[in-house]
Amino acid sequence: MEEIRWPGSPVVADGVLERRFDLVRDGGVVPGVLWLPERGGQAAPLVLMGHGGSGHKRTDRQVRMARWFACTAGIASAAIDGPYHGDRVPEPVESREYQQRMAASGVDVITNGMVDDWCATVDALAQLDAIDADRVAYLGFSMGTRFGLPYVAAAGPRLRCAVLGKYGMRQPSAMPAGVDMAPRFTREAPRITVPTLFHVQWDDELFDRAGQFELFELLGSPDKQLIAFPGAHHTTTPAAITAWSSFVAHHLANG
Amino acid sequence: MEEIRWPGSPVVADGVLERRFDLVRDGGVVPGVLWLPERGGQAAPLVLMGHGGSGHKRTDRQVRMARWFACTAGIASAAIDGPYHGDRVPEPVESREYQQRMAASGVDVITNGMVDDWCATVDALAQLDAIDADRVAYLGFSMGTRFGLPYVAAAGPRLRCAVLGKYGMRQPSAMPAGVDMAPRFTREAPRITVPTLFHVQWDDELFDRAGQFELFELLGSPDKQLIAFPGAHHTTTPAAITAWSSFVAHHLANG
Repeated sequence: MEEIRWPGSPVVADGVLERRFDLVRDGGVVPGVLWLPERGGQAAPLVLMGHGGSGHKRTDRQVRMARWFACTAGIASAAIDGPYHGDRVPEPVESREYQQRMAASGVDVITNGMVDDWCATVDALAQLDAIDADRVAYLGFSMGTRFGLPYVAAAGPRLRCAVLGKYGMRQPSAMPAGVDMAPRFTREAPRITVPTLFHVQWDDELFDRAGQFELFELLGSPDKQLIAFPGAHHTTTPAAITAWSSFVAHHLANG
Repeated sequence: MEEIRWPGSPVVADGVLERRFDLVRDGGVVPGVLWLPERGGQAAPLVLMGHGGSGHKRTDRQVRMARWFACTAGIASAAIDGPYHGDRVPEPVESREYQQRMAASGVDVITNGMVDDWCATVDALAQLDAIDADRVAYLGFSMGTRFGLPYVAAAGPRLRCAVLGKYGMRQPSAMPAGVDMAPRFTREAPRITVPTLFHVQWDDELFDRAGQFELFELLGSPDKQLIAFPGAHHTTTPAAITAWSSFVAHHLANG
């Protein structure tokens, strides 16, 4: 049985209340952050944000998006550290290193663990009066899609929509063969049926464009759309953030 | 010198004022429709809507979008009939027939005429107190891109943004060779520098996907994005309309 702990004090800035949490589970501790509109009143919908590789739950971009969601759209946000990332490790682990650790542990074990962590996080946050657990979305790119796509497939209609991308059916040659997600995505992407926005960087040097298109085609959602922007894998323009945020806000609007 | 005439009476419904207009030019009469937010007060930005082949200035979709723009975003809309379409012809002309007429007249002559018609329309509407001519956008697909892309290229920074698509660098085999836009698009697409949203139907049976991607790549706009939705050429989902409308409203917001 999991338990949620709230280390530290809430921080309020610019109309947003931010709280660190630790979800204590059988499998260990899941470190997370919750952002809430400061003016509560009614329960807020929730967007889950899965960070990219070498990031963590509180990257600058996630903080900025969480503030926009809270202030402009009245939406709460939550983020948790991925495997071998953030407060799950005593010090930052390099990309090559965590890929190898995943391969050594078995990518399915690690992926299932992260899926369970997201499920448990939503269960725990759903207990809060401030959260409307009937309106939940997932948003995450690159490693946030590596673990996010299996989570979205597992969550099914518990989610209202998903924003995924910067990942494909052919992984970069630098990654160990043992962490290839293609077999799993082949099974799980067709099971996703919620409205899905899939983001592609047109000049992605890590995941080739055709492999990303294949993954988009595999998605089972009748209401899916692909958006593409010029630039390399790590490029993120304000227009892209606007597109993601608008998509999430649109699908989380109304009870 | 052109002159604008307003045949008929304004029609007001659901907060939107609709007026037929005829722009009388040296080259003939350009039949158009203008939609305005009923509650004027301050000058409204303007979105130009170019209809698709076999459509006309007042298709159901354009009327619905014009109403959304007026009621929800305080944006005026204008549409004009394309060559061999709507009130420019005594009766509807079939696709094969107007393609052949274009080829016979010379596609550059017809295209330049339509570009001039759009320029003259904007000049005329800019004289109205109700219109803020510093905030103008263009939106049109398929034939609305055939003529719209050259117009957007010609208008340059007079436009704030453009929404184009459902067209590519390889035209359907059923079209006469004489109406191929590829040579012109090769020159003009790189001249477009305003923020551009390019729409692709993933399973387009008329314009192949690779040719549409080529056209997207040619666009000179640093701030461009591609959106793609499943389905055939003529499919248009509510999610697509939301994406177009949000993009236009975003770029026409604020003075």
